[in-house]
Amino acid sequence: MPTASGHTKAILASKVKGTNVYNTSGDKIGHVEDVVLDKTTDHIMFAALGFGGVLGMGEKYAPVPWSMLDYQSDKGGYVVPMSEDMIKKAPVYDLSDLTKGDGSFGDIREQSYSYYNVKRDW
Amino acid sequence: MPTASGHTKAILASKVKGTNVYNTSGDKIGHVEDVVLDKTTDHIMFAALGFGGVLGMGEKYAPVPWSMLDYQSDKGGYVVPMSEDMIKKAPVYDLSDLTKGDGSFGDIREQSYSYYNVKRDW
Repeated sequence: MPTASGHTKAILASKVKGTNVYNTSGDKIGHVEDVVLDKTTDHIMFAALGFGGVLGMGEKYAPVPWSMLDYQSDKGGYVVPMSEDMIKKAPVYDLSDLTKGDGSFGDIREQSYSYYNVKRDW
Repeated sequence: MPTASGHTKAILASKVKGTNVYNTSGDKIGHVEDVVLDKTTDHIMFAALGFGGVLGMGEKYAPVPWSMLDYQSDKGGYVVPMSEDMIKKAPVYDLSDLTKGDGSFGDIREQSYSYYNVKRDW
């Protein structure tokens, strides 16, 4: 978390895209396909992780709370605290569905935060 | 703002990059070079706008609060409520400086929000 003096850690969104994602055992489980932003607030909605290479579902993406991604420089990628089982059952979507309508989208975000049991801050 | 039912408007970060930026008079004043994200919270820090084409400063970028960017589909770009004078005097940086240290970075964000007189929500 930022310190009281306002110190923060910043990254360009374009640098996040394509970065590998590992589980806590060190296995590569996918990559960050993109980051989904809220147009109307200063919030990052979630990261869209591509798990296709592992699960064989090619075009599917899992919306994962941004705060679950922990960059570890020794791995050169993000580590997420997900079990194999959690990944297998993760809610996945087509990429276009992640930004589709105002109506359905809120549900996708809520479903993601609920599935991973991450505290909402909105 | 999102409605009470949780409806939101979402966009892929990669789609934001490169989008043209206009002032309220309809003049093109630059483009979105990238979006700067906070690694440690779910917050968008700011957008990095490239004003180089207008001001002749080639490699300089202005950190601008994300909430100032209003996408207008008829223009195919973002409109920001900035006067010519505000743009000319805007704080600008090298792109690499926008994500550099934890120490200096917080100051850049604060300076930006202060300069544009945008309410902080962190």
